Formats: sequence, C-alpha cells, structure tokens
Amino acid sequence: MLTNHQIILANYPEQKVQAHHFQLISSPLGKPAANEVLIQNQWLSVDPYIKGRINSAKSYAKNVAIGEVITGEVIGEVLASNSKQFKVGDRVIGMMGWQTHALMPDEKISHLPNADIPPTCFLGVAGMPGITAWLGIHKICKPRLGETLLVNAATGAVGSVVGQIAKKLGCRVIGIAGTIEKCEYAKMTLGFDECITHHDANLHATLSKVAPKGIDCLFENVGGALFDTVVPHLNPFARIALCGLVSEDDFSQTHPVHLRSFLNKRLYLQAFIAFDYFDEWSSIRTQLISLILDKSIRYTESISHGIENAPTAFIGMLNGHNLGKQLVKLD
Amino acid sequence: MLTNHQIILANYPEQKVQAHHFQLISSPLGKPAANEVLIQNQWLSVDPYIKGRINSAKSYAKNVAIGEVITGEVIGEVLASNSKQFKVGDRVIGMMGWQTHALMPDEKISHLPNADIPPTCFLGVAGMPGITAWLGIHKICKPRLGETLLVNAATGAVGSVVGQIAKKLGCRVIGIAGTIEKCEYAKMTLGFDECITHHDANLHATLSKVAPKGIDCLFENVGGALFDTVVPHLNPFARIALCGLVSEDDFSQTHPVHLRSFLNKRLYLQAFIAFDYFDEWSSIRTQLISLILDKSIRYTESISHGIENAPTAFIGMLNGHNLGKQLVKLD
Repeated sequence: MLTNHQIILANYPEQKVQAHHFQLISSPLGKPAANEVLIQNQWLSVDPYIKGRINSAKSYAKNVAIGEVITGEVIGEVLASNSKQFKVGDRVIGMMGWQTHALMPDEKISHLPNADIPPTCFLGVAGMPGITAWLGIHKICKPRLGETLLVNAATGAVGSVVGQIAKKLGCRVIGIAGTIEKCEYAKMTLGFDECITHHDANLHATLSKVAPKGIDCLFENVGGALFDTVVPHLNPFARIALCGLVSEDDFSQTHPVHLRSFLNKRLYLQAFIAFDYFDEWSSIRTQLISLILDKSIRYTESISHGIENAPTAFIGMLNGHNLGKQLVKLD
Repeated sequence: MLTNHQIILANYPEQKVQAHHFQLISSPLGKPAANEVLIQNQWLSVDPYIKGRINSAKSYAKNVAIGEVITGEVIGEVLASNSKQFKVGDRVIGMMGWQTHALMPDEKISHLPNADIPPTCFLGVAGMPGITAWLGIHKICKPRLGETLLVNAATGAVGSVVGQIAKKLGCRVIGIAGTIEKCEYAKMTLGFDECITHHDANLHATLSKVAPKGIDCLFENVGGALFDTVVPHLNPFARIALCGLVSEDDFSQTHPVHLRSFLNKRLYLQAFIAFDYFDEWSSIRTQLISLILDKSIRYTESISHGIENAPTAFIGMLNGHNLGKQLVKLD
C-alpha cells in the first residue's frame, strides 16, 4: 500500500508565516473510487495567494482549516484511474495541494495542455501567474503606447510577465524588486527599462528620476509602505491593478489613501483575481504560449526538492528569496 | 455706461469656506471687441466643485487667483454682440462666473439648447450635475437589475438624479442626506427606497438594516467619515464612482482604506469629472431631457436672489442648506 506524505496547517499565522505553522504527516492511501483518479504529484506550485488561504481572516475563497492539507496547484501523473477520462500515465493539473499523492474526482482535474513548452510553465508563465499578469494588463491597466508602467515584485512569477507584456505593448517599464541582482535580471534578461530596489533610502527621488513623466499604470503586487510611496507618482487617469499585498503580514492593515488626489487625477483602482475570468483562461494561455515560444516572454524558476521543503520554499518566496516562479519538485 | 458687479476671491480658505473669503466689487463695463459678446447674466449655478477651484491646493483645473471673479456656469442674455454667431436677445450658457455681466469670446459660450423645459434645468438636471449623475451610473457603477445602489448628498443636484436613474434601471436605491425632511423628499418625491441621515448615531446598524443584501454601487459625493463608514458594507465586485468630497474641508485628508478587503472583494473605484466626457454631453442631455419630460426625473431648485448673495448661497450649499439645485437669480 502507498503512503501519502502531506503538509497540513498546524495553526494560523498571526503575523509572519513560519515553519511551525506547518506539519508533515503520513498516512496510507486508498484506491480511487468511482470517477476518481489516484495521482502521483510531481510539481507543487508555491504562490503568494496561499498566504491568504492559511490566514484566519475571511478571504475570497474558503480558508484552509487547521489539520487540512495546504492548498495549491500541482502537476502530477495518473497512477491509477477509475475514470473514463483519465488513464494511467496521463499528465494532469489541478488543486491537489501540498502532498505527494492525491485521490481526486475526475471533474476537478484537467489534462496538461499540449504545447511545446516545459510542463512547469503551466504553473508559471503559461499558468495562473502568467494569466494574472495578462488580465491585469489587458483588463485593467490597458496601457497605451509610450505610457509608463510600474510593477513591483518585478521578478516574481507574475511581475516578470507583467513587465514583458507591457514592453511588447510599447510601454516604458519600471520594476521594483528586492535586490540589485534581481534588478539586473529584470533589465538584462526581461528587458525592463529600469528596476530599482525597495530598500532605496530615497525612493521618492529615485522614482522621480526613473519615471520622470510619472506613472500611468501601477501593477500592485506588494502593498504596505511601498504602495503608499508610489501612489503620489501616478499621473492623471492612471490605472491601478490591485493584484496582491504580499508585504502585508497584518491582514487588518489600512492605507492612508488621499481621495482628493484620486479625484483630481481621476484615478482608477481595480482589484482582481485570475479565477474571476476562468472562462477566458484557455484563450489567454494560447497567447502566452506563443509569446513564450517566440522568446517575447522569458522566465526563470526557483526549484526546491521534496515535500518536506514546501513550507521553507513558501516562506522563502514570501520573503523574496526566489527568482521567478517558485516550485517544489517531488521525487 | 453699464456697471458690472462681481464677486472676487479675497483670499484662499484654509479650512471652511466663509463669507470673508469673498468680496463684491463694481467696475464699468466696456463694449464687446471683435468676436465678443456682452452678456447680462441671469442665473448663476452654485456647485460644490467651485470649492476645489478657490482652494490653493492643486486641482484638476486652473484655480481662481486672488482678485479674480469666482468661476461658475451661468445662463444669460446677449445685450450687445460683435459676433456673427450671437444676436441681441439670444439666451446663452457659459462659464461667465459670479458677476452681473460678462464680455465673452463667442467661442466660449453656447446657445441655450432648445427644449420644452425651464432654462434653469440646463444648470441642473439637464446640465453638468445631471450629466455627472448619468456618467457615474452608466460609465462606472453600471448597476444590474436588482442591485443596491447607495448615493450620498442624496437630494443634491447630482445625487437626486443618480437615485432616479438607478431606480429606472431597476435598482434598490438608498440615499444618505442631512436631514429627516430631505429623506422624506427623497422617498416621497424622488422615489428612493430608503433614505437615512448621516447624523444617525448608529450608522453601521442602520446601513445593515436598509441594505440587508449589502451595497453593489456607491456613488460618492461626500467623502470624510461617511465614506469610511459605508465601504465595509460593499459587496464583492462593488463599484465606487468617486464624484465629490464635499464634506472635506481639509484638502490633505486621507482615508484608512483596507486594501486587503478591496482585494478580497475585488472592488473597483474610479474617480471622474463630467468635463472628461464633454464630447458625449449632447447625447446624454437628450436622454436626460426625455426623462424630465416624462417625469422619470423630478427636481427641485433652491433659489437665492442678487449677486451679493452668491457667497451665502454657496456656503449654505456646502453646509447642506439647499434642496436640489442651488441657483442665484440676478435681476
């Protein structure tokens, strides 16, 4: 009989997520029931949104309960099938979560799309993060030729695609990232026009220097003090795509928003999540795949190994230790 | 020779606008130069946006300088013309400002539109305030049948039209106004479903009671603490049309915005002013006129008399003493 190794939620983080909030447990696996599939998980996707799911504060989706497996998107292979739709050896993608195996109803998983790109792309540049980037750009920012777009967490799975799509659309692209090395990567490999670190002691002056004509589009992944610093640099009619607040550990944190300048500048702020546009994923993915194939979108992955290292990989990503998409490879 | 009586800006208000910020002066009037028209002003429009123009803080439009005539839309009659486009006796509308007469370039004024409604409607329900209401509803709130819309300053020139258009679109309409009498007017005459006063000591509980299914559209005219109180009652995917901040005397005031709930609820906030959509005014006005003619839009005017009373009328409106559109009639 197979043994399943799972990372479960031990308790809710009150502030920073730490290792002791997780627990590794093992249990025997059963056989797939009718219309179920047994999956060997191969690649776990580690994403910032999971922080919202393991918090006791109400979010847009059901939270993970204490003792439950941590949620997350996964690529795996079918080991045994009791479904007409999947056969042994099929590559599948679904919300299997942080565990080595999963018994899943067939309606909750999909075949990995066919395309001449590495399978892990479907967790990154051609998956939810890439689709998120595409949506924020095309549904909210709608940048025009020559406008300036700023994206923070600029070398993360979402931010790196945001900047590259915006370049393709003819924008001046400014990134904000955590280290000088990441900024070099953003400029040299991803083709950003400028990239600055949020550790800059004089961020206002630096922003004025790298965005001398102001900012027309803000793709916000970070929140916290960084958001408050950037907002005064927005131009009239600027658009803010509110995608994430990864820097905020205190879920009750508020921002001192100056509505008077929102009014004077006719600013536009829209929060969004990719799942709201699920019926468009397939066509967006097709576009992303062609951008990947023609090298308009480049990407990097940070890979950790072994289910027991999933929490460390996740905590590392929240603290900016990754470059590009953070994955956990299971053996 | 004619004498012009003008209200000029004596000094910039630092907080509340008061009578001593204005001064009445008189001066002789010249004759119209080439392509100019001499106008006898008849109706001054008194609008909240003027507060932003007579403040030293930067706004979306050029501020009134100390010693300049207070800006404002006016209906008048041509007394003398040196323009091929206007003849003596023509009814005109334009930004003549707070004065009894004006010499205006012909390109800066328009003939009053032809329609079987009182001329003052073109400063109110069929003018900038009505068009503002239409734009906030149709461009930003986009309410769906059965949704709940909340508008504050509910019986003002903008708010009263907002609520009536939203009712026509099949919304449940909640107003917030300054007095119980205004609330009665909103419900009995304008047809709002509910109207509450912002003096309510238990506004959160009252909001939960009048909007038990939450708020889908917020048409914001007021700002200040009232905005902060209403935001937690917004539903997922709610839209905020940010139109005015009439309660805010301190132009540096900020709001404690909880971006986490903006994200969780995927909220949408857009600030706007009617002048940004100037090329659509004519077609919007046509729609408003037919709504006025078929009594779908009802309206009230508060009328003060004499140029010397324009500041008092304006200050009164900022403090909620008006019902419906505030005008000053010049004799």
